[in-house]
Amino acid sequence: MDAAEFRRRGKEMVDYMADYLEKIEQRPVYPDLEPGYLRSLIPSEAPLEPETYEDIIKDVERVIMPGITHWQSPNFFAYFPASCSYPAMLGDMLSGAIGCIGFSWAASPACTELETVMLDWLGKMLKLPECFIAGTDGHGGGVIQSTASEATLMALLAARCKAIRRVKATNPKKSEAEILSKLVAYTSEQAHSSVERAALIGGVMMRKVPTDKSYAVAGDVLKKMVEEDKAAGLIPFYFCATLGTTPSCAFDHITELGPICNEENIWMHIDAAYAGSAFICPEFRPLLNGVEFADSFNFNPHKWLLINFDCSAMWVKKRTDIIGAFKVEPLYLKHENQESGLVTDYRHWQIPLGRRFRSLKMWFVFRMYGLNGLQAHVRKHVALAKEFESLVRADKRFEICAEVIMGLVCFRLKGSNELNQNLLKKITESHEIHLVPCQLSGNFVLRFAICASSTESRHIQQAWRHITQLTFELLQETSH
Amino acid sequence: MDAAEFRRRGKEMVDYMADYLEKIEQRPVYPDLEPGYLRSLIPSEAPLEPETYEDIIKDVERVIMPGITHWQSPNFFAYFPASCSYPAMLGDMLSGAIGCIGFSWAASPACTELETVMLDWLGKMLKLPECFIAGTDGHGGGVIQSTASEATLMALLAARCKAIRRVKATNPKKSEAEILSKLVAYTSEQAHSSVERAALIGGVMMRKVPTDKSYAVAGDVLKKMVEEDKAAGLIPFYFCATLGTTPSCAFDHITELGPICNEENIWMHIDAAYAGSAFICPEFRPLLNGVEFADSFNFNPHKWLLINFDCSAMWVKKRTDIIGAFKVEPLYLKHENQESGLVTDYRHWQIPLGRRFRSLKMWFVFRMYGLNGLQAHVRKHVALAKEFESLVRADKRFEICAEVIMGLVCFRLKGSNELNQNLLKKITESHEIHLVPCQLSGNFVLRFAICASSTESRHIQQAWRHITQLTFELLQETSH
Repeated sequence: MDAAEFRRRGKEMVDYMADYLEKIEQRPVYPDLEPGYLRSLIPSEAPLEPETYEDIIKDVERVIMPGITHWQSPNFFAYFPASCSYPAMLGDMLSGAIGCIGFSWAASPACTELETVMLDWLGKMLKLPECFIAGTDGHGGGVIQSTASEATLMALLAARCKAIRRVKATNPKKSEAEILSKLVAYTSEQAHSSVERAALIGGVMMRKVPTDKSYAVAGDVLKKMVEEDKAAGLIPFYFCATLGTTPSCAFDHITELGPICNEENIWMHIDAAYAGSAFICPEFRPLLNGVEFADSFNFNPHKWLLINFDCSAMWVKKRTDIIGAFKVEPLYLKHENQESGLVTDYRHWQIPLGRRFRSLKMWFVFRMYGLNGLQAHVRKHVALAKEFESLVRADKRFEICAEVIMGLVCFRLKGSNELNQNLLKKITESHEIHLVPCQLSGNFVLRFAICASSTESRHIQQAWRHITQLTFELLQETSH
Repeated sequence: MDAAEFRRRGKEMVDYMADYLEKIEQRPVYPDLEPGYLRSLIPSEAPLEPETYEDIIKDVERVIMPGITHWQSPNFFAYFPASCSYPAMLGDMLSGAIGCIGFSWAASPACTELETVMLDWLGKMLKLPECFIAGTDGHGGGVIQSTASEATLMALLAARCKAIRRVKATNPKKSEAEILSKLVAYTSEQAHSSVERAALIGGVMMRKVPTDKSYAVAGDVLKKMVEEDKAAGLIPFYFCATLGTTPSCAFDHITELGPICNEENIWMHIDAAYAGSAFICPEFRPLLNGVEFADSFNFNPHKWLLINFDCSAMWVKKRTDIIGAFKVEPLYLKHENQESGLVTDYRHWQIPLGRRFRSLKMWFVFRMYGLNGLQAHVRKHVALAKEFESLVRADKRFEICAEVIMGLVCFRLKGSNELNQNLLKKITESHEIHLVPCQLSGNFVLRFAICASSTESRHIQQAWRHITQLTFELLQETSH
């Protein structure tokens, strides 16, 4: 394919993309097929000779689309949102053509520098404390990670390294292995599974902190666990707080937890993967109070800030902490400017070495929406969630299972877990809307998350009519 | 930006992308600017109100392009190639519009199933042993990782978990911490820095194995180290072999190393990040002989197989080994089909949870080029490297520092390291071509890697004329 053909096919693809998103509502949101469906639809080996573009694009509708769970459909209410916006796609297209791998400043200065400045822009939108902003001479700063899982892991590894060095400084005879075996990390029992995974990767113990009635961790509970562990000879070193948990969007009490972590030399990382985007709105910003105690903070603009995956924003207070975690410096990656204070080599901030030019899509989105446009997007989702909450509350057969603060509504039929499992099964099998469950206080709960940017009030009303219709059928079947 | 505007702007962007790549030779390959250049060119905060698209696209030339190291320029000979092709960009555009997050089969069946089949296609192109192919009932299979660094780390973590379980099975009283402190991993002293980093992350010892005259690891050297370590009470558990090292594209002797690893219960991972693409050509496939002894194998189609970053292909012989490394399964990620043998939940195969629909770009590239087209691409690069090698060999002032097998030529001026450092400085400051150095046997060496798909014989000839002109100037200055 030469440039001339790309000009033609690229423009056709732009139309296909726009058509797909404009007419997405006509597609069943969740596919109706059996595992292994795709293999029989295509050859078992790559072709020897080139095929035509027509052949390929025809196969997109024949092979791919039947197997897509349409995350951008206004009838998709599962997991949390995955952002998709036209400006972000344009930024990504440009990034694809530039095709640079920005692991160091020299590998493409614009790729590194735009990222640092975009993270500053975003940090200022969130009103993060000054210590997290890179500026021209700050000690902190931001980085784009692929996912929140990687941010959690990077923070844990940096904390592990810092704790080992600290213990070794006062007990030079202790081996690293001995110290490692005493390190203990903490997170909410409601925290995302990736936090537990980070501890497994890092080879450290992880203790789950029980939550209060609102599914949040309070200061005294952590304090007590830390005291017990210290008395048992363990070394508390890392706490991952969650702002907006995955099951119910609960908010740990970081104003209580932060001072405890600071006193105890425990690295506090805040995972606000979903909820973080909302902190750009003044009315939600108080939920971030206490961030000043954190060593690192992370959220996913690719969830709720209209920037396509992957774009997970992470800030650290002291960049030396994260860089120092495992700096390895071979000659083929050295460059003249690397000792300068203005230069950031992002490869030291992350697990992978290579990195795409992802700040381009942030730049496009921030400028094409403006802060006001981004706030409007967040507020619309919250209003839609409140609308759904009212519908649920007005129906005495149902109950709301957690306070609705942002775009997630946790609800269930009053009754057994089996009843609710059957309701979800009916919903999934109808293919009209898509939800996933969670567990809260031993209850099987349905999560209704506002996801697509095209979701409107009519979709909420339709979804509720659909759910109540299936409930009616289910209760009839059950009573027979 | 609504769909109508995206149709217009998207088509303009397609033209911009094609223009950029068609005229890239006119741009200086390496930017001439000081660190911190970008911050002063744009506002210090995001705008409140939306800006126009015209404003943004104008800024691409004003702000971004002056700071780009043009990896796709035919005058770029640094690091290793970063693939960029029109079919891959079309696949990525489609992936952006679909915007699914394929962490599990249910999260988008097509995203998972196409990936499994594409990794089978690619595995067959490489003639990987059957045990690495997923098929409909294989025990092995492939996955797309973001980078080779992540593949190396995943393999090390799987090996660590397997070793701990094995030791615990015969010594139930040993603690995990105790076992962990005895584990020892190995890799070539020429291996990529990310291998050392994987050991740091995994909290295990890493020993660097000395190489022979061709910068490759031989079996007897590893054997001796393993014996010594076992005698000292350590537990050898992981060896990362390299096929095509970063400094000089050397090939470890895996036919010797593999049987040793198998005998000693050492997980052998093969990192062929750059060179792996060449194994689709029958004439290079013998270099992969011995892969049958490996537990996992990885290379980067995003380097040399015309698939845009990120696309690092990894295969494992036993998928249970890698999945078992840290499976954490919360309710909100469970789905009905997950117990079936046909279902793959790729989140268990990787560090991040979320994942883009990256197999689309593989599918587009494999079909638009065909195996023959991909082989032609590899062969063209190797021929260009040989052409450059001949030019160097014909000039008695220079020497070739390592056998030229693929698209990389390591060379230097006969003389001091300082002389060669000064030559590279001149090359970098001229901004006409771009190279990076490496160190071989204590010598400062220049690496000349064929990178762009648009590089032709005339660029090689021009580059050599440029280098000899700068050499002439340098030697004149030095003699004064």
